[in-house]
Amino acid sequence: MDDGSVRLESLLKILKAISRVRDLNTLLALLASETSACLGAERSTVFIYDRARNELWSIIAEGMDRQIRIDATSGLAGHVLGTGSTLITGDVSRDGRFDPSVDRSTGFTTRNALTVPIRNTRGEVTGVFQAVNKSGGGFSMEDADFLEAVAAEAGVTIENVSLYEHRRSMLESLIKALAESIEARDPLTAGHSENVMKYAGGISRHLGLSATLTREIEYAALLHDYGKIGVPDAVLRKPDPLDENEIGVMRSHVERTGRILSSIDFEEDLESVPQFAVEHHERLDGSGYPAGVSGDAISIGGRIIAVADVFEALTAKRHYRDPMDPREALGTIRAAAGTAFDAEVVDALQSYLEAERVI
Amino acid sequence: MDDGSVRLESLLKILKAISRVRDLNTLLALLASETSACLGAERSTVFIYDRARNELWSIIAEGMDRQIRIDATSGLAGHVLGTGSTLITGDVSRDGRFDPSVDRSTGFTTRNALTVPIRNTRGEVTGVFQAVNKSGGGFSMEDADFLEAVAAEAGVTIENVSLYEHRRSMLESLIKALAESIEARDPLTAGHSENVMKYAGGISRHLGLSATLTREIEYAALLHDYGKIGVPDAVLRKPDPLDENEIGVMRSHVERTGRILSSIDFEEDLESVPQFAVEHHERLDGSGYPAGVSGDAISIGGRIIAVADVFEALTAKRHYRDPMDPREALGTIRAAAGTAFDAEVVDALQSYLEAERVI
Repeated sequence: MDDGSVRLESLLKILKAISRVRDLNTLLALLASETSACLGAERSTVFIYDRARNELWSIIAEGMDRQIRIDATSGLAGHVLGTGSTLITGDVSRDGRFDPSVDRSTGFTTRNALTVPIRNTRGEVTGVFQAVNKSGGGFSMEDADFLEAVAAEAGVTIENVSLYEHRRSMLESLIKALAESIEARDPLTAGHSENVMKYAGGISRHLGLSATLTREIEYAALLHDYGKIGVPDAVLRKPDPLDENEIGVMRSHVERTGRILSSIDFEEDLESVPQFAVEHHERLDGSGYPAGVSGDAISIGGRIIAVADVFEALTAKRHYRDPMDPREALGTIRAAAGTAFDAEVVDALQSYLEAERVI
Repeated sequence: MDDGSVRLESLLKILKAISRVRDLNTLLALLASETSACLGAERSTVFIYDRARNELWSIIAEGMDRQIRIDATSGLAGHVLGTGSTLITGDVSRDGRFDPSVDRSTGFTTRNALTVPIRNTRGEVTGVFQAVNKSGGGFSMEDADFLEAVAAEAGVTIENVSLYEHRRSMLESLIKALAESIEARDPLTAGHSENVMKYAGGISRHLGLSATLTREIEYAALLHDYGKIGVPDAVLRKPDPLDENEIGVMRSHVERTGRILSSIDFEEDLESVPQFAVEHHERLDGSGYPAGVSGDAISIGGRIIAVADVFEALTAKRHYRDPMDPREALGTIRAAAGTAFDAEVVDALQSYLEAERVI
């Protein structure tokens, strides 16, 4: 095959790898090895720009057993990061921009280099792709053309991964802010939401639920009381038993939770968060609220959070009573297994508490 | 140039377009036209899967002046969406899976077709790429190989755009949920946060600020009172003037706003939301709180939200007084321009109110 055919095969292969290779490092390693093979280079390196530290770090460095971190303004890579333009360097020893310190520390000898910017879909430079030591002479314009295309694929894939990551961390921080707001409202039950999340997560894992469903249940657990944000202090913080009217006001928090959470545009994996949260006061025998549904008509999330919520309420310290012993609280819940609570969920709570040596 | 060279050139060109072409439709149109040219096809179409309606719709349809919408289970495209496998159809009239209804409605005649799945980086099929009517006979395996690579680029780019869109809509819905929580706490000032956002946005635009900065200021305006979530009803809803101690409690909302908003992992363009929100009670002459900073040391967002907040408070109906006439409220604020308020911001409020025919 001639050079062109090799490069065509290579581009077809790496493009198709986008949807087949799940892991960013594996994909970039493939891009680096195809680049070296196609261009006849000794090594290829993919650097990602770390804005916070103003450094370039090697997510993929062929022939290296450790990460390289360099100042984002130094060397050929730093130069390309700054200018956004491709650089062909025929003899690095004659180029003042070359920084020999990495070679000194790794024992490698760079002779010639091809360095191209990696951009996201907004055109911002987010990294640098570098191939070094082309055998039989320096890199050509055609080599640069090829590497720029490979770098474009690297750029959009890196961007996608960081978008997924940021979407998740943004969501998590916002859900935490929502949960903290409830705690700010009602210091008497401080820590309740976080604890219910912990127990609900433990139960889910001991039931063998998937990581995705467990995460969905944990978020719903953290937010299950969110509607309490609208309950007046006179009811929310009342030390004495509530009268009938006040009970109605208090119970209205469940529907408000549903309304507020339903307005949030969750990602697909978290679509059931509102339903799980709303159903935490439903009971297996239909005696719960707000809808009075029973049995399997209550979602698995609702059944788990119900048990986690009651266990937390019984074992937490309240100003009007001492906390109940965990074993005693489990017994209280166990007595209603099959009537109010899902027996399998109660079993899972017990195995979780045993595994954590709480009981 | 032989076929291979043409295809290599084409792939290099479309890959490099990822970071150069800002608009998804333009990029996909380029992919479609390169595909038709390289494969010798009459037309190429990019379909996106609409999960909610279970339909495929043509984001790009060469030679069509309108969008095609088809049932996601019908036709060759529906078949490929369902199976996730490439389909080469030499003679569509002999293939029972072909749905002639689109041809009937458009007057086009499909003879042969190459249909490949579009996938995201998670491997999920999110659309279909189809080329039809190869001149001089049917599509080959090499054609399929090429189109699968082009479809991979389409897939990752479509995913990228939908991630940006979803991140934004998720953030907006969560910020609205936060804002509604404040309203639920304090029905007396219902609509305050939304109105302050509206005025702050209007002022920003009349100051000629960028769309990005305006959005940042609008979000901060919507959330500026968020810390009030933790102020007890006895203070928040007190109809009479507050005593010194209660004023302290009320003012503490600003720092709580800062604490909660700072914990949110906003995208880069929204980094200043917490600062803008926290500074809405600062005054130009240093007489404000919480920090008592003055002049340009107060962010532009803080100076704008301060004016928007006071204008809203004066002109909104409160249970203890009638709303002030907008012209009178502007006069009141104008009297403090240069001392409490930024005079340019006050001018911008005036031109906004005039443009909206509020005054």
